[in-house]
Amino acid sequence: MNAGFARTPESAYYAVIFTSRRTGVDEGYGAVADRMVELASRQKGFLGVESVRGADGLGITVSYWTSLGDIASWRAESEHRVAQAAGRGKWYEHFEVRIARVERAYSGP
Amino acid sequence: MNAGFARTPESAYYAVIFTSRRTGVDEGYGAVADRMVELASRQKGFLGVESVRGADGLGITVSYWTSLGDIASWRAESEHRVAQAAGRGKWYEHFEVRIARVERAYSGP
Repeated sequence: MNAGFARTPESAYYAVIFTSRRTGVDEGYGAVADRMVELASRQKGFLGVESVRGADGLGITVSYWTSLGDIASWRAESEHRVAQAAGRGKWYEHFEVRIARVERAYSGP
Repeated sequence: MNAGFARTPESAYYAVIFTSRRTGVDEGYGAVADRMVELASRQKGFLGVESVRGADGLGITVSYWTSLGDIASWRAESEHRVAQAAGRGKWYEHFEVRIARVERAYSGP
């Protein structure tokens, strides 16, 4: 899902930076990853997502949200929780999640 | 430069999320990108970097810093400014920079 740029607002918002290294195990990963993006995009407070995975298995997905409460609701969403368990159990060798408040943004060229 | 995970501290710190789409122009891009990582890693307040570029040309680089002042100093660093100009002029079709304060972090599995 290397789709493109997220259109995020001028006002304050939040980023969830999810950095992960995949195991060699596929078992439905691609379909579930796509489904999670689709599901996230319909959640309250979702602003956009940017996602890249390199050939070496390292990936960074940054999703953008209106509030910390919206992020907590998404984390607790039931189908997402099932996906999280599969991620921990078989798809990810390691991951880091960082939740951050976007304070300034600009674009170019 | 898909090296791996950044080891970031427990206390508050900042992330610079740089999302970019490359043009088809190379002209020294790889060497300068590597040099910028090397140079950044010696700047005051640098905590780490995570970077991935996908086969489609979209890339996400997240660098982590102790303070907003350290980020401003790195942005103003002279060799970095030359690289920024080349990036705007020939290497990047589009980019978004978001500066964010990391409020919470966890890892897994």
